[in-house]
Amino acid sequence: MEPRGVSVSAVLPAGGSGERLGGTTPKQFCAVQGRPLVSYAVRAMERISWISDIIVVVSSENIATMKTIIEKYGHKRVTVVEGGVTRHRSIFNGLKVFAEKEFSSHLLQKPEVVIIHDAVRPFVEEDILSKVVMAAKEHGAAGAIRPLVSTVIASAADGCLDHSLERARYRASEMPQAFLFDVIYEAYQQCTDYDLDYGTECLHLALKYCKTNAKLVEGTTDLWKVTYKRDLYAAESIIKDNLSQEVCVITDAKETAAQVGFLLSESLKSQIKVEAVSISQSKCDSHLQNILSGQCYNFVCVNVHLDTSENNSFSIGVEELTSIKKFARETKKKNILVYGLLIQYKAWGCKRPPDVILFMSLIKRKYPEEIGPNRLRNRKLTDSNYK
Amino acid sequence: MEPRGVSVSAVLPAGGSGERLGGTTPKQFCAVQGRPLVSYAVRAMERISWISDIIVVVSSENIATMKTIIEKYGHKRVTVVEGGVTRHRSIFNGLKVFAEKEFSSHLLQKPEVVIIHDAVRPFVEEDILSKVVMAAKEHGAAGAIRPLVSTVIASAADGCLDHSLERARYRASEMPQAFLFDVIYEAYQQCTDYDLDYGTECLHLALKYCKTNAKLVEGTTDLWKVTYKRDLYAAESIIKDNLSQEVCVITDAKETAAQVGFLLSESLKSQIKVEAVSISQSKCDSHLQNILSGQCYNFVCVNVHLDTSENNSFSIGVEELTSIKKFARETKKKNILVYGLLIQYKAWGCKRPPDVILFMSLIKRKYPEEIGPNRLRNRKLTDSNYK
Repeated sequence: MEPRGVSVSAVLPAGGSGERLGGTTPKQFCAVQGRPLVSYAVRAMERISWISDIIVVVSSENIATMKTIIEKYGHKRVTVVEGGVTRHRSIFNGLKVFAEKEFSSHLLQKPEVVIIHDAVRPFVEEDILSKVVMAAKEHGAAGAIRPLVSTVIASAADGCLDHSLERARYRASEMPQAFLFDVIYEAYQQCTDYDLDYGTECLHLALKYCKTNAKLVEGTTDLWKVTYKRDLYAAESIIKDNLSQEVCVITDAKETAAQVGFLLSESLKSQIKVEAVSISQSKCDSHLQNILSGQCYNFVCVNVHLDTSENNSFSIGVEELTSIKKFARETKKKNILVYGLLIQYKAWGCKRPPDVILFMSLIKRKYPEEIGPNRLRNRKLTDSNYK
Repeated sequence: MEPRGVSVSAVLPAGGSGERLGGTTPKQFCAVQGRPLVSYAVRAMERISWISDIIVVVSSENIATMKTIIEKYGHKRVTVVEGGVTRHRSIFNGLKVFAEKEFSSHLLQKPEVVIIHDAVRPFVEEDILSKVVMAAKEHGAAGAIRPLVSTVIASAADGCLDHSLERARYRASEMPQAFLFDVIYEAYQQCTDYDLDYGTECLHLALKYCKTNAKLVEGTTDLWKVTYKRDLYAAESIIKDNLSQEVCVITDAKETAAQVGFLLSESLKSQIKVEAVSISQSKCDSHLQNILSGQCYNFVCVNVHLDTSENNSFSIGVEELTSIKKFARETKKKNILVYGLLIQYKAWGCKRPPDVILFMSLIKRKYPEEIGPNRLRNRKLTDSNYK
């Protein structure tokens, strides 16, 4: 998955005004499940360890807002840059922090390949990012594409149909795109003011000014751009779905305990996306902090505390839980729920996993609609009505 | 609004397999708020009085399903026709019921203009339908268009970018479209098997075979086509929004009573879309039936029963309410809520409207999420966080 032997950074233009959305808040700052859209896109990038720097380009009036978002959601490796009046000018500004000393307070390490991705496409996955990066390394430029949903037509001057394009021959150009840094930076340096003011397509600049024919990579449906209000509705539903499927089970470092965590995550797997992390009990606080801010599990994080057969008193467990409780209060502000569970290890041995139903009910408490009985009932109705 | 001096019917191709949705149920039959998508599109058409016949074209295995839907939701003026293996063949079949005796059990009256609209575009409004019909009458063909969301590109044989289209010069071709019946029918009769099997664009056929350059009409954002699962999510949210804003207030036929209904609807208007209908109390049952099935109010229908100053006993009002209660049980199956309200007319006179808060709370009971305090709270958070 990880592109080898190539340094990568990302630029996220987030300077749009959101006119098409019909609201006054630019769409990248619209809250979806209580969190601004741009934060999801940043998170999608920072989850990927091989992306070094993430440059978010916003208009001057939104710099403070963006910095607040970064602080609130604990984003790392992010540099906020002031954008220009058009998309191309904003991207160009984002690239300059890697190349021009006078532009940035500290010059960032120039990457071999730079990813360009929209702040309003929150669902980008590592797989497609990796593919465009590798293709850019080989071809100089690469971009995700999707089949056209509607036929594209050209109109004549009188507002009547001139001709329609054969749908199969064309594709919609989506994001992410990736470029050899030197290619796209050269293209921006060479291009005309007309390009900077009226153009929209980075691949076009690479072709026109650097004779680089971008490799086109078929993307998945989740690359779509939040453009209209209906897209916000859709994003909200998808994010709800995703959130209810991301759980991190944290166990203490003992082998038997890790084993319990493993069994637990195995049992939960059929219902949700779950990862088991093993950390030492004594370092619980700081490790938890790192795991939560770094990995961005933003759902329920369950700490399985074990009362093993080694004569540990129940009171130690309770003490442990108290510190978790305090920690949970802090993380709750970041929309992360942390639960501490005290489990009598000996009682069920390491073959039988802890109570999955109990775990699911904790998750359910946060998103009752998503994984509650209502949802299952609705799904059933849908299927039975029309089959 | 109504196109004058022209007879109009509509064909709704609904034969798609829904492959892009990733499910097994074709998207037009997917339930959105418990009701199949195609039913919303049919309803959008049948609400418009100047559309005579509505032809729904479905694949052979879905004919029974479609007939069940028509019965269940009380759709009128609908004829179900068996589709072909492609979109064009299905539309052609739909047109044949107006022109070929052997194709239909009873030949329908050939319209001057025929609308073609997708079953998976549930939000079409009378305004755009009227515009394309009038444009078709003048130009022979017309279709709704929208700006492109993404840049369109052409790829070379090696999977690399060949060229990108200047976004401003092209448009996405959407639905509805409308044609002089003779133009589109002639086009389908003339066109090749290749067109029927691989083509997607009706405007193209009219141009190619009848030299008719369609008039292009800018559509609104709500014309979009449900294509992916995210579109179903969006449709669900939009339908929820719409539903919570359609209320029919029914009063009895007396002038004073009608006045009350008028005042009530005036008071509600600021919060919801409301219509006042005046009917005679004695014919309440059958009239209600007609109003509900014909107009397709599918939210709360409130019957304002008046206990006027003319010495009507309270018991008469109660009797009336009992019959409404019985009726409400039936309509509930069709997802329509009917409430009977007994209002002491004399007590508040005809200047002061009935209790709007009471009405709103009845509506709220059906869709608590949509107009409840939660929603308002969320909206508030969104606004205050990023301004």
